[in-house]
Amino acid sequence: MLVVMRHGATPAEIDRVVRTIEEMGYDARPMPGAQRTAVGLVGNDGRVDASRIEALPGVAQVIHVTQPYKQVSREWRPENTVVTIAPGVTVGGADVAIIAGPCSVESEEQIVAAARAVRAAGATALRGGAFKPRSSPYSFQGLGRRGLELLAIARRETGLPIVTEAMDEHGAYLVAEIADCIQIGARNMQNYSLLRVVGRIGKPVLLKRGMAATVNDLLMSAEYVLAEGNDQVILCERGVRSFDPAVRNMFDLTAIPIVHNLSHLPIIADPSHGTGLRDKVTPMARAAVAAGADGILVEVHPAPDRALSDGAQSLDPGQFAELVSELRPIAAAIGRGVVHPPRIVGTPVVAVG
Amino acid sequence: MLVVMRHGATPAEIDRVVRTIEEMGYDARPMPGAQRTAVGLVGNDGRVDASRIEALPGVAQVIHVTQPYKQVSREWRPENTVVTIAPGVTVGGADVAIIAGPCSVESEEQIVAAARAVRAAGATALRGGAFKPRSSPYSFQGLGRRGLELLAIARRETGLPIVTEAMDEHGAYLVAEIADCIQIGARNMQNYSLLRVVGRIGKPVLLKRGMAATVNDLLMSAEYVLAEGNDQVILCERGVRSFDPAVRNMFDLTAIPIVHNLSHLPIIADPSHGTGLRDKVTPMARAAVAAGADGILVEVHPAPDRALSDGAQSLDPGQFAELVSELRPIAAAIGRGVVHPPRIVGTPVVAVG
Amino acid sequence: MLVVMRHGATPAEIDRVVRTIEEMGYDARPMPGAQRTAVGLVGNDGRVDASRIEALPGVAQVIHVTQPYKQVSREWRPENTVVTIAPGVTVGGADVAIIAGPCSVESEEQIVAAARAVRAAGATALRGGAFKPRSSPYSFQGLGRRGLELLAIARRETGLPIVTEAMDEHGAYLVAEIADCIQIGARNMQNYSLLRVVGRIGKPVLLKRGMAATVNDLLMSAEYVLAEGNDQVILCERGVRSFDPAVRNMFDLTAIPIVHNLSHLPIIADPSHGTGLRDKVTPMARAAVAAGADGILVEVHPAPDRALSDGAQSLDPGQFAELVSELRPIAAAIGRGVVHPPRIVGTPVVAVG
Amino acid sequence: MLVVMRHGATPAEIDRVVRTIEEMGYDARPMPGAQRTAVGLVGNDGRVDASRIEALPGVAQVIHVTQPYKQVSREWRPENTVVTIAPGVTVGGADVAIIAGPCSVESEEQIVAAARAVRAAGATALRGGAFKPRSSPYSFQGLGRRGLELLAIARRETGLPIVTEAMDEHGAYLVAEIADCIQIGARNMQNYSLLRVVGRIGKPVLLKRGMAATVNDLLMSAEYVLAEGNDQVILCERGVRSFDPAVRNMFDLTAIPIVHNLSHLPIIADPSHGTGLRDKVTPMARAAVAAGADGILVEVHPAPDRALSDGAQSLDPGQFAELVSELRPIAAAIGRGVVHPPRIVGTPVVAVG
Repeated sequence: MLVVMRHGATPAEIDRVVRTIEEMGYDARPMPGAQRTAVGLVGNDGRVDASRIEALPGVAQVIHVTQPYKQVSREWRPENTVVTIAPGVTVGGADVAIIAGPCSVESEEQIVAAARAVRAAGATALRGGAFKPRSSPYSFQGLGRRGLELLAIARRETGLPIVTEAMDEHGAYLVAEIADCIQIGARNMQNYSLLRVVGRIGKPVLLKRGMAATVNDLLMSAEYVLAEGNDQVILCERGVRSFDPAVRNMFDLTAIPIVHNLSHLPIIADPSHGTGLRDKVTPMARAAVAAGADGILVEVHPAPDRALSDGAQSLDPGQFAELVSELRPIAAAIGRGVVHPPRIVGTPVVAVG
Repeated sequence: MLVVMRHGATPAEIDRVVRTIEEMGYDARPMPGAQRTAVGLVGNDGRVDASRIEALPGVAQVIHVTQPYKQVSREWRPENTVVTIAPGVTVGGADVAIIAGPCSVESEEQIVAAARAVRAAGATALRGGAFKPRSSPYSFQGLGRRGLELLAIARRETGLPIVTEAMDEHGAYLVAEIADCIQIGARNMQNYSLLRVVGRIGKPVLLKRGMAATVNDLLMSAEYVLAEGNDQVILCERGVRSFDPAVRNMFDLTAIPIVHNLSHLPIIADPSHGTGLRDKVTPMARAAVAAGADGILVEVHPAPDRALSDGAQSLDPGQFAELVSELRPIAAAIGRGVVHPPRIVGTPVVAVG
Repeated sequence: MLVVMRHGATPAEIDRVVRTIEEMGYDARPMPGAQRTAVGLVGNDGRVDASRIEALPGVAQVIHVTQPYKQVSREWRPENTVVTIAPGVTVGGADVAIIAGPCSVESEEQIVAAARAVRAAGATALRGGAFKPRSSPYSFQGLGRRGLELLAIARRETGLPIVTEAMDEHGAYLVAEIADCIQIGARNMQNYSLLRVVGRIGKPVLLKRGMAATVNDLLMSAEYVLAEGNDQVILCERGVRSFDPAVRNMFDLTAIPIVHNLSHLPIIADPSHGTGLRDKVTPMARAAVAAGADGILVEVHPAPDRALSDGAQSLDPGQFAELVSELRPIAAAIGRGVVHPPRIVGTPVVAVG
Repeated sequence: MLVVMRHGATPAEIDRVVRTIEEMGYDARPMPGAQRTAVGLVGNDGRVDASRIEALPGVAQVIHVTQPYKQVSREWRPENTVVTIAPGVTVGGADVAIIAGPCSVESEEQIVAAARAVRAAGATALRGGAFKPRSSPYSFQGLGRRGLELLAIARRETGLPIVTEAMDEHGAYLVAEIADCIQIGARNMQNYSLLRVVGRIGKPVLLKRGMAATVNDLLMSAEYVLAEGNDQVILCERGVRSFDPAVRNMFDLTAIPIVHNLSHLPIIADPSHGTGLRDKVTPMARAAVAAGADGILVEVHPAPDRALSDGAQSLDPGQFAELVSELRPIAAAIGRGVVHPPRIVGTPVVAVG
């Protein structure tokens, strides 16, 4: 940590900073400069809470050199973390994962049709919301527990593991009973109580970047999950707020190589929310893979123009199949493949009735 | 709602939009233009979910004319809502409320000293965090339940009602046992499960604007509380994310007259988080009152350079007293006063031991 | 300057940084830390171009301690600069200046009516655009040279000095022939060629903050004018781009105390562009003065609903008079007055015919 | 255009809007709704200046349906515009163009070495700044006219056409004498006087997106060039300002498919400025091509750690060659090739001495 003193800070002020650093148990190294003095704080093996020092007279600025996160960092663990959602379905390995499905689970017919369609086109896992965070209390809020049951049916029919969102502690336990991977949505990225709970549950977590979260904030939120002993975390870029009304969100694909540089955790990209516009999903999914994404998360609906939510950004099955076929050569260009759908391991269809 | 067709949309595409609107139970009014056709949707008495229509071929854009919120709107209730935190302590009436106190409750000595100091300077209510959302899992997370007990002691000593944050459902019930007003922090503004809970609890709610929330998003989140039957909601501007590293947040004071125009709910401003810099708190608190804020929320610590959190943005008691004395003539310039501290109604001090 | 090495940087990499700093003529001070090594660069009396060092292997980050600007800084000149637009009309002194007038000069009748109205209400100077930067090439672009002549007539009629915009080098010389203060608009804040020209011309300059400019960027642009020997620069906050469509711009009033802290130059605020909405102009003008603005710049049109540009954000003369009367007690609350309009010193009205 | 009236607008207010629209020469179509009335304006064949109407009493909002630009729109010209920089070197056709070179021209040796290196690796054109817009007046500002001469030498040596920036009117004429394509930088994107000049000059223009420009703003600025009769405009995404300090700019690749949808003009991407970090340039260049960019603009320096500007974001020749080899299969995956370097058509090398 570096404490920059104001131009004209008095020796007494500099001395007080030095003493405060020492009181806090660190070493202080004053560096007088031509224009101003800086005081280095050394001896810390993590980020220091700078509030006390920032508040001292004569201090212009406190600059953190050490990153505030720890277990998520590549310095902590140099090799990539590979998250296993289901046997044979991994995120963060050599191949690109494809997680697809409708925004919301609407009915057995719809979710099974969607699951079959995305599996046929090459998806690795099924997404679909049972609990939906909606900005209006009057909008469709998802089928809840019944939606989870329908997801289980779709998994049995297709063998695809399930990724679905939990919105609160109680819901997290319900979701964990059925889902293979618990999604934490953008609006809850800094819901620390929820992060601790899914950390404790121990199932794989898909953590979406908040709408105004820096990459650093995203990593800090992941740290909450790892701090509970759960390192099975997949990060997800899904666009951030911007000034341009041309898109619903600004899709920040540079976050992908940045995360790969700073952290061992895998990162995937969601071009459906990242753009909010169906005809932008395909080019931006390609771009995400070219940028190095470990997977993509795409909204696919059997009949987008009848969807109860997010129809305008959902692909239909034909568009999705075409997208997957475009992704293969792009993945190949950077030495990667596309993860294969898992074999059907659940009870066969006849057993359902 | 207005559906704008692409230039060159076919009659069949326009017709399909018309039929879809009618299927949804509304009237459709096509308006052919020189460059493109638009189709008006009329007959709705609230916001329509546009996903189905946005997904139709030939549709360029869907424009919402009706606001998505209802009970928070001034059209729903023209007169101002006055929120009563404690007998005689209101927010949203003629006078400006002053809520002050430390970022975190640290000890009985600290919170009682802070409460006495802010009361002496003219504060109307005491703030102080028992549960603290911190971006690092390794930072001080607040004293929790013990912090709530200390706040109760400070209230008994000074008569000041308590405003303190709840971070999750369980915490909301704990906080509600003691607090006079439950704060929902910026990071939880779209934690809809928590909003429903505090809506049901029924105590006054202080809802802070999220870091990337539009004014519309803030009103939608308040709608969640009102939808549960609780209209005692105070909104709070506390700065939003911006590109300028000169400040921790960009303090959007224009939100104050905008909210007053759109909603009957009161709105206060938090210049401590809104700027993140102690020497900016006083000018921006003055500016907030001049812009019409119904109150201010300020961090004051008996000894800022020893604070466990947010020391750099906390005023000391002397600075706070000076701030309050500057606010009076500014409030007077726009025909308002400053709310008086409540009389001490709790058990007298001697009874504590 | 502080060069932070990556965790695991080799001694050879650290050594190369040290040698590069020395080659550049400075002293290097390595500081080994528990997690990473940092190397201080000392001996510079201004900002160092860090590109060479950032590019070296093993370097994680370069942190600048010295500000990149010089002559605009308060460290360079501790006392406030007072800009004199006309005899008796100053910005940056004890009193708050009020510059008002229409967006565009439209006709002699309109500009003279506007000038009389704003003078009667207490304005200190007249604004009005002769050259208008418009985002569409097909919009009204201003009356050009003829507009300047009409401004001169309005000045002769009312004694108010003229503030008007120049958009390019050629225009700057034309504007300088007539204007008392040359405005550089937000879109040209980083048009460095134009900044140099107005620096050389030597007349007072009103420099508006760009739509995505940090406070630092604004100060750097002002440095271009001062570097040419012209210190008569008034900065102007006029709102920046944001994600919230509720306002045209986000009005960043915290920039006012920040500039006062960093620089000796005066800063005024433009609530008309800063909000883009007529009914927000008055509260936000009050807020600007309460935050410490050295003046306000307001659009006033004799008949806003007939204005050729920006009608929706212009006050009518009655609204403006009311605004000025509200500003006086707010200025008084922080120990300031409002600048008085200048006496009419031009040729008397009868001489015009 | 759609004029939305406030809830509770009086019939007289609605009537006044109708009459104003008719006075302006258009047809008005009132549409009474369940909550509010809207009035459609029809008969316009371009965007209407809404100021007069926005200012009328009872008006809540004015919504533009027609785009404000014209000649740049795909509705105006459905087929792609192909810009020809030099014989055989086009942007906007089937193949992806690669424009590379140093940030600044520093010396004959440096620019010729850079030109040879980028040509050998597959670049289509040479970039290099002779006039440099720098945020500090004390930074290296480019070699000016001498830099242009050195660029001409590099072209003669390698056959690569030249893309270089003009910062003002005078400079535009100088640049036009030598350059094959005139670059307008991000800071000058709304310097309308300069846009008009390069429109009149008629040479190909490379127009970079401003730091806070929406896609719409970018298209409006291009419209200034086309309005002067010059349709040889290449747009360029180079990142926009964001709240995340992890990157210098946020690289908005979604702008590429958006521009392709709205306009017939080609759009390329600049991952060097778009990320500001050397090790992010390669993945983001790949992403840009995958997203459909018509070309990339990359900073390459023969010895980045000795560059006078932007060293930290420049590739060295080896890294650049590797990048180009990665781009070929990605372009192929979406049915495109990479433009071949032009044959050397200038005076042969031996003739130089």
